[in-house]
Amino acid sequence: MDNDIFYNPTKVIFGKGTELLCGQEAAKYCDKMLLHYGGGSAERSGLLDRVRASLRAAGITVFELGGVKPNPRLELVYEGINLCRAKGIGFILAVGGGSVIDSAKAIACGTPNSDDVWDYFLGKKTAQALLPIGTILTIPGAGSESSDGMVITNEKTMAKLAYGDERCRPVFSILNPELTYTVPAYHTAAGIADAIAHVMERYFTKTEHTDVVDRMCEGVIRSLVRNAKQAVTDPENYDARAEIMWACKIAHDGTLGMGREEDWGSHNIEHELSAKYDVSHGAGLSVVFPAWIKYVYRKAPKRFIQFAMRVFDVEYDGNDPDWTVMQGVKRLMFFLQSISMPTSLRDLGINDKSVLDELAHRCAENNGGTVGRFAVLNEADIRNILELAY
Amino acid sequence: MDNDIFYNPTKVIFGKGTELLCGQEAAKYCDKMLLHYGGGSAERSGLLDRVRASLRAAGITVFELGGVKPNPRLELVYEGINLCRAKGIGFILAVGGGSVIDSAKAIACGTPNSDDVWDYFLGKKTAQALLPIGTILTIPGAGSESSDGMVITNEKTMAKLAYGDERCRPVFSILNPELTYTVPAYHTAAGIADAIAHVMERYFTKTEHTDVVDRMCEGVIRSLVRNAKQAVTDPENYDARAEIMWACKIAHDGTLGMGREEDWGSHNIEHELSAKYDVSHGAGLSVVFPAWIKYVYRKAPKRFIQFAMRVFDVEYDGNDPDWTVMQGVKRLMFFLQSISMPTSLRDLGINDKSVLDELAHRCAENNGGTVGRFAVLNEADIRNILELAY
Repeated sequence: MDNDIFYNPTKVIFGKGTELLCGQEAAKYCDKMLLHYGGGSAERSGLLDRVRASLRAAGITVFELGGVKPNPRLELVYEGINLCRAKGIGFILAVGGGSVIDSAKAIACGTPNSDDVWDYFLGKKTAQALLPIGTILTIPGAGSESSDGMVITNEKTMAKLAYGDERCRPVFSILNPELTYTVPAYHTAAGIADAIAHVMERYFTKTEHTDVVDRMCEGVIRSLVRNAKQAVTDPENYDARAEIMWACKIAHDGTLGMGREEDWGSHNIEHELSAKYDVSHGAGLSVVFPAWIKYVYRKAPKRFIQFAMRVFDVEYDGNDPDWTVMQGVKRLMFFLQSISMPTSLRDLGINDKSVLDELAHRCAENNGGTVGRFAVLNEADIRNILELAY
Repeated sequence: MDNDIFYNPTKVIFGKGTELLCGQEAAKYCDKMLLHYGGGSAERSGLLDRVRASLRAAGITVFELGGVKPNPRLELVYEGINLCRAKGIGFILAVGGGSVIDSAKAIACGTPNSDDVWDYFLGKKTAQALLPIGTILTIPGAGSESSDGMVITNEKTMAKLAYGDERCRPVFSILNPELTYTVPAYHTAAGIADAIAHVMERYFTKTEHTDVVDRMCEGVIRSLVRNAKQAVTDPENYDARAEIMWACKIAHDGTLGMGREEDWGSHNIEHELSAKYDVSHGAGLSVVFPAWIKYVYRKAPKRFIQFAMRVFDVEYDGNDPDWTVMQGVKRLMFFLQSISMPTSLRDLGINDKSVLDELAHRCAENNGGTVGRFAVLNEADIRNILELAY
């Protein structure tokens, strides 16, 4: 294990009916807030009305900003920052999935500082102060409910970039699996694929002797695989929804990255897909990650053999260890296909191979020339992975 | 999963040389502190001098109270409370194992309140305010470095009782596996047995559908089993020491209890052993837990079958599922014996069967008549378990 710090002070309130606690929880931090959300589903389901009532009962003055879209946009972040500044708002409550939470985090970074918030994403500056935020999660997967980061898309430059630090973790997050009953099968599956990718980005590491955390990683992926089909086909199955909601939280709260170098190359490659084609992040990862494994596993086959054996129960073949690795990839892809996730660019509707050069070029360019740390990939490597994913 | 709250804000600083960061970390909380520790080993090894230098460099005025013994005593807690009150001390830094940290937590509970601190342990009162504490861990196992509780022995009444709430978690804990090189083999093994028991107290639950956390539990125990022999026989093996230190932290930081009812009957039974015979807590648990499993598994065999299969790779025998359970218990006992832990009361030197009645009686009496929640055990049940452990 490498030297590392674990610090995750997000208070997670988990279970049935817990959204009704948002008022009393938020009142510890503010008497005035921005309520931030996405489209109409939280309104139609009555969730927003329950939230408003709880906030009102706690004596909190609420300003609202809806309209967050998947792959959340910088333009709405600026709008939120202006609103918070104009109204003197010091707390943001995000009601939604990862996109809404990421948008709220970006507003929280931008509001108290005089910089252009996009400069943080470009790596030019660092946020000095941050507003605290709380969340009510409605779509599991992104893990933003207790993670330290966010991803925002600049719609003018088509760049989708990440930013974050420890202070970006929400002060509280409310996770009620019942709120996920209405998440459509496709987005349920995409969230699961995203969470599995969050674990794998940490699992495939150059760090040696990472046994405890490896085994927790394997357990979280196994649980996601075990409960996925039920959540997709029986959307009001509380137990499956609960397992998935909790696994998605653990997958990205820092627990599984402790004491190890992480990779994140696949995420960087996927960001180009969702920036250009507006595909769901989890679906994009479902395409990129198997191709990434096929391309890089020879650098350190033992971790991929361990993955195949412990997560997908593949036998070890001492005469042909590559078979064990590839059998693991096959079972991963078979699982993703079983929940209707794409496993090729063509599955995503990208039928023109000529875009691969552009995607690879932009990916390298947006990330300082290379992506990944377990496997350091240059533009040619990225192009090869996209070819394998085609 | 049951409704539950996860909130663990302890900042854990992990790795080589990290004790040198104690001054800068503590200075965020105080300019005056109580430095609390045990016997001479932290002094002899030079650790305390390094700590003092770091605190001095950070401008912190340090008062000291050493002398904490295993199964920490109430008398020293009172002494610490008096010292903190007399000197106006608002922060405690514990340097040691679980006993030192528990003693520091009790002083932190007692100092700012006018109650007799023992009333908290007797369940008569609740601490209103608490001092913050930090820790530098030198003996892994108890998990007190990021847990919410403590156990103190009243040497006058021979009662060993627990108390705690969320605010008892240290604000920071420094975990340097190198500091554990000097832990003797017996105490290394006892710490591992304690940590495995912490996981099992949570694993054996009546709560249904606990897949994610089950698998993390299994992974943590597997890692402890995998690394134990190396840590015991090769004490300066950093990698094994690191895995064990991290597993012990996870075992008791709340991660593995999320969303489930926990048991804790074995711990309550063991407390009578260590209160009367001053045996190491982990060694006592190594005796009690296998007997507990043998006695209670028929209440819900499926969890014990799962344990045997997933932790100890026992095959499922559909004709005789009890065989699978008992094979799991045997492998658990074989493992404990392989690291020289006792697995019977006689191994502990308790050769007089006539004490079992007294132990069972006191255990029931000290805990309101019954112990445990997965298996609710009355005095007769406790007596039967002690008989099985004899």
